Amino acid sequence: MIENLSFSQNRTKVRILDQTKLPGEIIYEESDRPEDIYDAIKSLKVRGAPAIGIAAAMGISVAAGKLAQRFSDDANGFVNELSKLAEYIASARPTAVNLKWAADRMLDTARKNLTLAPESIAEKLKDEAQKIFDEDVEICKRISENGLSLIKDGNAILTHCNAGPLATSRYGTGLGPIILGLEKGMNFRCFVDETRPLLQGARITAFELMNAGADVSLVCDSMVSYLMREGMIDAVFVGCDRVAANGDTANKVGTSTAAITAKYYGVPFYVFCPTPTIDVSCKSGKDIVIEQRDGSEITDLYFSRRVAPAGVKCVDPAFDITDRELITAIVTENGICRPPYEESLKNAAIRR
Amino acid sequence: MIENLSFSQNRTKVRILDQTKLPGEIIYEESDRPEDIYDAIKSLKVRGAPAIGIAAAMGISVAAGKLAQRFSDDANGFVNELSKLAEYIASARPTAVNLKWAADRMLDTARKNLTLAPESIAEKLKDEAQKIFDEDVEICKRISENGLSLIKDGNAILTHCNAGPLATSRYGTGLGPIILGLEKGMNFRCFVDETRPLLQGARITAFELMNAGADVSLVCDSMVSYLMREGMIDAVFVGCDRVAANGDTANKVGTSTAAITAKYYGVPFYVFCPTPTIDVSCKSGKDIVIEQRDGSEITDLYFSRRVAPAGVKCVDPAFDITDRELITAIVTENGICRPPYEESLKNAAIRR
Repeated sequence: MIENLSFSQNRTKVRILDQTKLPGEIIYEESDRPEDIYDAIKSLKVRGAPAIGIAAAMGISVAAGKLAQRFSDDANGFVNELSKLAEYIASARPTAVNLKWAADRMLDTARKNLTLAPESIAEKLKDEAQKIFDEDVEICKRISENGLSLIKDGNAILTHCNAGPLATSRYGTGLGPIILGLEKGMNFRCFVDETRPLLQGARITAFELMNAGADVSLVCDSMVSYLMREGMIDAVFVGCDRVAANGDTANKVGTSTAAITAKYYGVPFYVFCPTPTIDVSCKSGKDIVIEQRDGSEITDLYFSRRVAPAGVKCVDPAFDITDRELITAIVTENGICRPPYEESLKNAAIRR
Repeated sequence: MIENLSFSQNRTKVRILDQTKLPGEIIYEESDRPEDIYDAIKSLKVRGAPAIGIAAAMGISVAAGKLAQRFSDDANGFVNELSKLAEYIASARPTAVNLKWAADRMLDTARKNLTLAPESIAEKLKDEAQKIFDEDVEICKRISENGLSLIKDGNAILTHCNAGPLATSRYGTGLGPIILGLEKGMNFRCFVDETRPLLQGARITAFELMNAGADVSLVCDSMVSYLMREGMIDAVFVGCDRVAANGDTANKVGTSTAAITAKYYGVPFYVFCPTPTIDVSCKSGKDIVIEQRDGSEITDLYFSRRVAPAGVKCVDPAFDITDRELITAIVTENGICRPPYEESLKNAAIRR
């Protein structure tokens, strides 16, 4: 198994797999600089809502270790500085709620330990970041078990973008049931959307599922309707970046296109997420900010070959909103939420 | 305006723009060899249902010119050989009906002129191929006028793949109303799907519409739902490769995904085609053969950079079927066909 995120041996740095280089190259970067953590999240070296939460937590904790040297006797000054730093790292991407959630949790931990010396607070923060990671492993395992109850051995599953181990800690969310099922000796036909513009499906999901021993077929995002019309898909499994209180869900752009198509052909559409991804303060999809990215992702194929005419404009949203009415169920570590979502999501989130 | 297809000066060869090189390079190839015409169609140097019909007709006629030298006194032998050659060229791609339609029309012309010497028959065939081209110009103009009645100055139009001049003769089908409107001083906001895997939208449609002076924004195929949810699209205009008698339509893969999405958001979805594209002998979409292509189009980004893991399988259909219930109207040179399509399409086709 390939690790996406870990502390360096003495916990002074975060070790991040550069996922933009997959599947061709396995390259790790180590850093304790907030700017590098911000950049790794912003430039999608680490991506996936749970993983960027973990990366932010680890990044804040190693930066805190350095900060503690400057504020050795001033716990209040240390936490003040730390909160600016956490806010900065959390601002790297706007859509996933996990980033802010992780930053808040780190700050809470620091504030609860204000009586300690900054150096000790920093150690507590590293413990907390590791705890977030370890909890995510446990959460993903439970999500995977819940999700596995929705499918049968031999089913054909379509997935969009990447919601596997590299987007989380272990197992993944949307890919978790497949990987867990493979471990139990089951098999599935996996259809993977390439996921333009950044090709997380072609590069990462196909790689992870093939490594796990699945039967993988790659398609373009535009081929979902073809597959479903031919009766080739039993269910759609996707992760998500934020779930509003009413069940509207933000995930990688193209998710809602797949959901609308699934609804049209009567294919069940399942969203997978840990409960921190449920943002009960967010009423509906209208309140979720969609990150707009640089159109060069579209005009220049995966940072290499220019294909579009010079000067063409682009619209390049990173995410889209899937209306709750298109979602068959939302699978969390605390059970499978079904409509009406206001109630089922609140119940799942309460049991955090 | 850039020509896609013409005879060489003395009508001994066909001159074909290599559209796979657009927009970076403008390269023409000239040939009289059936193998080259077959390859140009198969490898998408010339593409678009009307254009491949014209290319086949021109290709058959120049090959006939050469054949006439071998069969100078044997008109029957000449036509026999010609029919094999026509069948070969028509087999380059299976989905568009125009290819077979053009080949049949050329053979009919040859058979009607059996009393002439093969050399004279070949000249008649060149006249007929030119006539098919000239008729297509007139047909596209009428389709464009009919289509223009469906939109207003300033509207935002989404299009998928390429149904412009380069896919036809002049104006195009799906892009015709936009280009004609621009000529009349109107303007439109044009949203262009990149159209994976071969990027006809990014490479050709964006190029043609920008050359025509339109306001063009490029998006990934997966972003259609985002655009429509934001209320950014007034109508979808697409061409097509074959229309069944019941209105089911085959067009570039992803067309039906866009149509399903348009239906969900209440955006009108219009299909544009010359009446030869209506195949009244084909009862429904189930009877249309969908060409399956080489998955390397997906795994290797536009013939250059490999992005998917080694050994991954692909499903790579070139087209998909859009159910008639998703189509607001089918626009032909003989008027705008609305449901029930069995009747309206038959009426439009009869007036050929």
